[in-house]
Amino acid sequence: MNRVDRDMLACIEAKRDGQELTSRELAAFVRDFTAGRCPDYQAAALLMAIYFQGLSRRETHALTQAMLASGVRADLSDVAGPKIGKHSTGGVGDKVSLLTGPMAAACGVVVPKLSGRGLGHTGGTLDKLEAIPGLRTDLSLRRFARVLGATGLCFAGQTADIAPADKKLYALRDVTGTVAHAGLIAASIMSKKLAENLDGLVLDVKAGRGAFMPDAAGATELARAMADIGARAGVRVTALVTAMDEPLGARVGNALEVEEALALLRGEEPPGCADLQAVCGAVAGAMLVLGGRAATPGEGAARALATLRDGSALARFLAMAEAQGADMATLREARRLGRAPRSHVLRAERDGVVAGVDALAVGRGCVRLGAGRLVKNAPIDPLCGVILRKKTGDRAASGEPLAEIRYSEPAQLEAALPILGTAWDIRMPEDGAPVPGPPPSPVLATISST
Amino acid sequence: MNRVDRDMLACIEAKRDGQELTSRELAAFVRDFTAGRCPDYQAAALLMAIYFQGLSRRETHALTQAMLASGVRADLSDVAGPKIGKHSTGGVGDKVSLLTGPMAAACGVVVPKLSGRGLGHTGGTLDKLEAIPGLRTDLSLRRFARVLGATGLCFAGQTADIAPADKKLYALRDVTGTVAHAGLIAASIMSKKLAENLDGLVLDVKAGRGAFMPDAAGATELARAMADIGARAGVRVTALVTAMDEPLGARVGNALEVEEALALLRGEEPPGCADLQAVCGAVAGAMLVLGGRAATPGEGAARALATLRDGSALARFLAMAEAQGADMATLREARRLGRAPRSHVLRAERDGVVAGVDALAVGRGCVRLGAGRLVKNAPIDPLCGVILRKKTGDRAASGEPLAEIRYSEPAQLEAALPILGTAWDIRMPEDGAPVPGPPPSPVLATISST
Repeated sequence: MNRVDRDMLACIEAKRDGQELTSRELAAFVRDFTAGRCPDYQAAALLMAIYFQGLSRRETHALTQAMLASGVRADLSDVAGPKIGKHSTGGVGDKVSLLTGPMAAACGVVVPKLSGRGLGHTGGTLDKLEAIPGLRTDLSLRRFARVLGATGLCFAGQTADIAPADKKLYALRDVTGTVAHAGLIAASIMSKKLAENLDGLVLDVKAGRGAFMPDAAGATELARAMADIGARAGVRVTALVTAMDEPLGARVGNALEVEEALALLRGEEPPGCADLQAVCGAVAGAMLVLGGRAATPGEGAARALATLRDGSALARFLAMAEAQGADMATLREARRLGRAPRSHVLRAERDGVVAGVDALAVGRGCVRLGAGRLVKNAPIDPLCGVILRKKTGDRAASGEPLAEIRYSEPAQLEAALPILGTAWDIRMPEDGAPVPGPPPSPVLATISST
Repeated sequence: MNRVDRDMLACIEAKRDGQELTSRELAAFVRDFTAGRCPDYQAAALLMAIYFQGLSRRETHALTQAMLASGVRADLSDVAGPKIGKHSTGGVGDKVSLLTGPMAAACGVVVPKLSGRGLGHTGGTLDKLEAIPGLRTDLSLRRFARVLGATGLCFAGQTADIAPADKKLYALRDVTGTVAHAGLIAASIMSKKLAENLDGLVLDVKAGRGAFMPDAAGATELARAMADIGARAGVRVTALVTAMDEPLGARVGNALEVEEALALLRGEEPPGCADLQAVCGAVAGAMLVLGGRAATPGEGAARALATLRDGSALARFLAMAEAQGADMATLREARRLGRAPRSHVLRAERDGVVAGVDALAVGRGCVRLGAGRLVKNAPIDPLCGVILRKKTGDRAASGEPLAEIRYSEPAQLEAALPILGTAWDIRMPEDGAPVPGPPPSPVLATISST
């Protein structure tokens, strides 16, 4: 377009009135905002106008590219093999990254994983991995590339120089009521994922009570927006919309989740983990397809799940952990990474069948136990959490344990119990009414950019 | 409501989601924003959410009261007689305040008038009055009350201590694309008018190309919102929606407009002023009804217009001017307040009938000549402006003067001409097609709070 770029006020008014902004205008906004030349109040007004009027696919792509360009990208030119990323929008009991990373790596795919901390009621991969004594995630991008080259797998924190514009913009969205918008969320996620210099990306977009997008329609819209950004950037994307109504697997809490992941990596089949295995198979299967290591998602899932039984995924995990500084004696020899000093059993108050376990309540309860943060940068307690003894479809008799709660301070249990106590929905099916069964496949939809 | 007040972020989210804010929440927002405790970026996000979701009548009233409470009110307890205010939302060639103030005062109504400067393409009463040598408008509220008691009429600038919250909020709206919203405009205007401690208020809400509200529906909505605020505050309001498609009267520019007003006050009937007289009759008539000096709008208009012929309105104007420091020799003896050094005649390029004179183009052209401001607090040239020789419905032959342009610097004429040149819409009616006549009554609607 030959048109003269609009200034910031004209851009706010244009977006307010439902017009598209040009890529140059969005780039100038991100540049000026990051440099402090565009004041926060104008950025806030633009964000709220975007909240109401939306972003076109072209605008979402342009915003992503502008935020990506505000920082550095990982240089993986010395790392051989297809680089396939994986990202989850956040859930409760979500160990999918801990499992699919080593599963895909064991099949010859390189998995560069720049992760975040827990957000709100959801856990974060970095927090989980740091429950392993000695393991460091604060790696430079050079060390990230080195570990990746050596083991095919590396988990590190996003460094400050990756998409700094997104960090600044997210902080503003957080205090101006402009977080929950699919286009803005998509641009934020993808500006960081594209910094990984990927060949392909599998997105696990959560939908349900325990997800940031409660309904499948919203999650699907978000998945489509991210797949489109990937396509425009030349990165193949497969986005799976998966259920996050109840926690994935049976353990929630940082060390507890690493333990459950290790059990699966050892080829065990711990109770309550069918949903987790199903999501891992689908995600890792899609990673193998994008990485050229499988022809179909089904073949990919079968190959990936086989690495749990043959020990090759465990070997990759241990190699990664060692390269990232883990205390290997503890990790190899101990069955447990440690145990919170106290434990409380939550019991059923009536006979019936579990119709649902509210992931949001479990996540919020675990935050109160100390597994997550109520304020930014607060320390967390890696050992606390919840072990689910009953999940959806299970029968429960009055007095039977629903969950075991691990905690350190009685005050934390006291704060968590009223929340955790509401999580289990136990019903006595009326005569003739169907008894709720275990949920169907947790994979609700698959969106592909190609 | 017993509900706990929401914090600022929760208020932004509630408004974003279409919920009402409580009066306490709006009062807290205004208080915190004025005191610097609510950051600009949160205020900007709230304003943009209001732009999209609107304000209920109760919310608009609460916002007005909160902004009013941020400052002082004029103490007019020593001034006898009904205090009836008048406010215009801004037009081009709008001398209605200069005329209706003395007209109503001559009929026994007290007219306390706190005015503003020109905004955008529209003129401001303060700028016009200051074209009279010596006349001061920067009066304290005590002097304002004294002049009012002595002459029944006083024009002064809004002092910094009247509704400071509105000043700060308006400055933010101005740079965040949140000016053009009826509820916010209504609250802004009324927070200042209520500080005049009025018994009644007549609003002249302009609609048309040269108004801030281009369509009559929007202007009517704004008029209703302001009438409702007045009713809730115990002030009777009559709001007239009047046409602002072409300039009112024949002169635009500060000294030129004062001259035209003085000619009307002397009982003359200068060409092109029928629309101006009609609006003045309606506005002053409504002021007399609210002030108990007329039983009906028609009787009020007749009484008010009679003060132009009997010299009583002129006497009030001169008394006010003298009390506000005007150089009375110049004002009484000279036919002109001064004359810009240069003049240019704009001529018709074809034969036809004037179908319209675009008030927005005339207003913008006059700003380029120096009659208004392109940046805040810039000095203005009181003598420049435009004298319209042809208005809607007039026949024009090719080469005939459409307007006389008064200016000081050739560069200013050069900047104004391309804009002014587009203002006259001259058409040759096709055979059988109706020739555009002069516009019907400029009063489009009357809204009353009682």
